[in-house]
Amino acid sequence: MSSSSSQNYLKIGIIGFGPFAQFLVKTMIKQGHSIRATSRSDYTDLCTQLGVSFFRDMNQFLESNNDVILLSTSILSLSQVIKSLPLNCLRKPTLFVDVLSVKEYPRDLMLQVLPGDSDVLCTHPMFGPESGRHGWKDLSFMYDKVRITNEATCSSFLQIFASEGCKMMEMSCEEHDKLAARSQFLTHTIGRVLAEMKVEPTPIDTKGFQKLVEVKESTSRDSFDLFSGLFVHNRFAKQQLREVELAFETIKQELLKRMNEELEQS
Amino acid sequence: MSSSSSQNYLKIGIIGFGPFAQFLVKTMIKQGHSIRATSRSDYTDLCTQLGVSFFRDMNQFLESNNDVILLSTSILSLSQVIKSLPLNCLRKPTLFVDVLSVKEYPRDLMLQVLPGDSDVLCTHPMFGPESGRHGWKDLSFMYDKVRITNEATCSSFLQIFASEGCKMMEMSCEEHDKLAARSQFLTHTIGRVLAEMKVEPTPIDTKGFQKLVEVKESTSRDSFDLFSGLFVHNRFAKQQLREVELAFETIKQELLKRMNEELEQS
Repeated sequence: MSSSSSQNYLKIGIIGFGPFAQFLVKTMIKQGHSIRATSRSDYTDLCTQLGVSFFRDMNQFLESNNDVILLSTSILSLSQVIKSLPLNCLRKPTLFVDVLSVKEYPRDLMLQVLPGDSDVLCTHPMFGPESGRHGWKDLSFMYDKVRITNEATCSSFLQIFASEGCKMMEMSCEEHDKLAARSQFLTHTIGRVLAEMKVEPTPIDTKGFQKLVEVKESTSRDSFDLFSGLFVHNRFAKQQLREVELAFETIKQELLKRMNEELEQS
Repeated sequence: MSSSSSQNYLKIGIIGFGPFAQFLVKTMIKQGHSIRATSRSDYTDLCTQLGVSFFRDMNQFLESNNDVILLSTSILSLSQVIKSLPLNCLRKPTLFVDVLSVKEYPRDLMLQVLPGDSDVLCTHPMFGPESGRHGWKDLSFMYDKVRITNEATCSSFLQIFASEGCKMMEMSCEEHDKLAARSQFLTHTIGRVLAEMKVEPTPIDTKGFQKLVEVKESTSRDSFDLFSGLFVHNRFAKQQLREVELAFETIKQELLKRMNEELEQS
């Protein structure tokens, strides 16, 4: 098998085989791609079930002639993982892809650490095991072709998502981080605030409140590591946190002003 | 027509004929009840279309022999409206019902102002023109039989909602206000904070963020008067506002701590 056309099957090596990678590979395998994986934990049994070759040894993993290496670590561990790769084991120029929920940070790390002849594609599938459990149709897939010389391999990789019906959104890592701070990070912040308040369904819920409870529950299923990664490694997130605080203060002052007006009238 | 059994048609007079009252009467008319209305603004034309008798004169309205008088003013105007009623015009003991989104406040006002032989039923339909546009089935209807001597009329009135399939929730006004501060008021607060931030859909929305945008849009369609009414006249709302603030501060400090830890490691 070669990777010279967009119809071709790819050899995809995955670093970090947590729930999100496990979710992605099911569709990749269904499409006929050949999957290898390595991870801090031993996933040999699960990989055998799924039809994935699991490598406990990173040297052997890198030597296994992957067309694509997919980085699927947590945001907080990416730096340590990427800096410890024995990159001299790579047999050929390889397409490196990340799927983190922040984009400037992995872009900068990959450009800094990876060999100059490796291609770099930054992506963010805006869905996961829960929102994508009935298929990926109409779900957004953001990507930025940061450094691509082998267009064919890059195109074959993107085709994995396009052929499932994803909304393919090409945009810069910077633009992504600006938008994601104002949407995904903001959603997690509100979900965490509601969880901190221990908000629960009541017998007299309105429809709007039911939506908030859903947001609380789905963001609480993600780790605090993900949430802090969205904050620490997205330079636009700090501004959003300040904006939430300012907006809350404005609303609070308005309510207190109304209360004083009512008290004066009565 | 008499109102001695729960199958009977009622003569229902409505004070305050805004969008919420207009929404409720459509179902009441469909069920065969006879509706009269009065309001600060002139709704003669709309009422003619709907088959409702509109009274510009409050004396004539109260003299018109209503079985039920439904108070459908805003929270902020209830006190002024109820205190200016020419109650000597009432021809018979009448069931007074309110539908405000806070409950202890109208209960106290009604008990204080209305004649001792008038019955008092406090209710809160937990839905409106938007969430109830496809019918009322499974939507919650909270009520508290505060002072009921004429059980038949009260039961006929409750039947309006029960027969449409509402989830009938009997609870005290105090319990309602505790729960509503933590659900409806909290939802409005978060919706208003998002509106203050001018949050808009992005090309890379997650499902969770889309729910927040819906909450922002539906709470922004309600007036700031409603929102401040939920705050000013529900004694449990102040505590909720403090809890939001505290929870936000806790989350923020946790994020800043994580950021410092990351900076120290790198």
